Amino acid sequence: MSKSQNIFDNQEFFDGYKKIRSNRYSANNLEEKPALFSLAPDLAGKAVLDLGCGYGENCAEFKARGASTVLGVDISEKMLAVAIEEHPDIEFLRADMSDLSFIKGKYDVVFSSLAVHYVEDFSAFAKSVCDVINPGGYFIFSQEHPLTTAPITGASWFRDDDGNVLHYKLTDYARGGKRNTKWIVEGVEKHHRTFSEIVNSLCEAGFSIERMMEPVPTEETIAMDKSWEKDLHKPNFLLVKAKKQ
Amino acid sequence: MSKSQNIFDNQEFFDGYKKIRSNRYSANNLEEKPALFSLAPDLAGKAVLDLGCGYGENCAEFKARGASTVLGVDISEKMLAVAIEEHPDIEFLRADMSDLSFIKGKYDVVFSSLAVHYVEDFSAFAKSVCDVINPGGYFIFSQEHPLTTAPITGASWFRDDDGNVLHYKLTDYARGGKRNTKWIVEGVEKHHRTFSEIVNSLCEAGFSIERMMEPVPTEETIAMDKSWEKDLHKPNFLLVKAKKQ
Repeated sequence: MSKSQNIFDNQEFFDGYKKIRSNRYSANNLEEKPALFSLAPDLAGKAVLDLGCGYGENCAEFKARGASTVLGVDISEKMLAVAIEEHPDIEFLRADMSDLSFIKGKYDVVFSSLAVHYVEDFSAFAKSVCDVINPGGYFIFSQEHPLTTAPITGASWFRDDDGNVLHYKLTDYARGGKRNTKWIVEGVEKHHRTFSEIVNSLCEAGFSIERMMEPVPTEETIAMDKSWEKDLHKPNFLLVKAKKQ
Repeated sequence: MSKSQNIFDNQEFFDGYKKIRSNRYSANNLEEKPALFSLAPDLAGKAVLDLGCGYGENCAEFKARGASTVLGVDISEKMLAVAIEEHPDIEFLRADMSDLSFIKGKYDVVFSSLAVHYVEDFSAFAKSVCDVINPGGYFIFSQEHPLTTAPITGASWFRDDDGNVLHYKLTDYARGGKRNTKWIVEGVEKHHRTFSEIVNSLCEAGFSIERMMEPVPTEETIAMDKSWEKDLHKPNFLLVKAKKQ
């Protein structure tokens, strides 16, 4: 299987990312995280695997919710150094999540927050995730919204002369494949997939889709800062809850 | 349940629609129809219901594929008059498909080609479709792509001074609800739903998603007429194959 890019060990990217994530009012905190946890089943006594765990803060929450085992996996040494320091009671492993052959044993719930868009071959990945899940277990993940990953020249908005957003410039939605984008630094490799490619890969791997979410900001968030309103034109995230059949 | 608009009995709409459908190189013929039939299971001996059957040409194809029973349902008297004349061996019924309480008995496969975007309450509709399907049976439908139905002011492209498409003007994707659009005539009522609303409604109704398609023109079609290329930015159709659990 092709290897994923390890952009998080790029110092400039790492520093920039840290800054974004420390913002209380980030899209991660206001949109993605509440949606992800709303999809979580009861974790009491469950074995949980977190693919692309980053700083490990979700791992800590899974543990707090009663998970019996939590393993956090990430490709980045720098991210894991933070995770290990902040959550010394949790097990972390450095590995490329696009190949899960290193995983021994099975898990009840596999989470992945904003990492699967770095995986090149989603079809093979879905199969390998299904292989490490107990029957009846769940794969719950978030990713950049397919409308965000679509444009080959990068996501962008059309604005009037005063800077107001008029529409999202959608291109290349049906052209799946690698995207070389600028996010914090140049040359971040992501992979665009249509909704149907995502759904079909999961179904073929042995999952049934239980729920999808495309979270948007609350009215309170928009009232606080009108720039959030553009997410109603084009959401930032897609989340899927899939059950192993 | 709210009633659907009966725009097909508007004479101007009916005439305009007839002209579009008679074009061999329409998006229906080149993209939607091949995708719909590729999702069809073996129909030999199966009871088939076609919701929004229009001219009844799909009903005839289901019959040709060996279906034991075919019932075509449409809200439009004018459309059904054509259907009855062209396919005298098939049973047709005039009714609003948004309320299926008139259906007696169960079907093995329910098809619906380009009609569900006229149904206001998709969640209630999905439940009522599930009710008329035998266990293990299928609901296979096509609809206008959610990116087409999204913009409140109607689907449109951003072009350069020479008329070349630069991007699709995406707005309002996350704002589900009624759309009052111009298509052939003014005032055609459609209903926009996000991918997640469609998927969640089907799952809650008792279906499991088996496959989704967002067909695009073939390379041959694009070579024949370059204007088809814009469908790679934004597909025209979404198709879903859902199985009653």
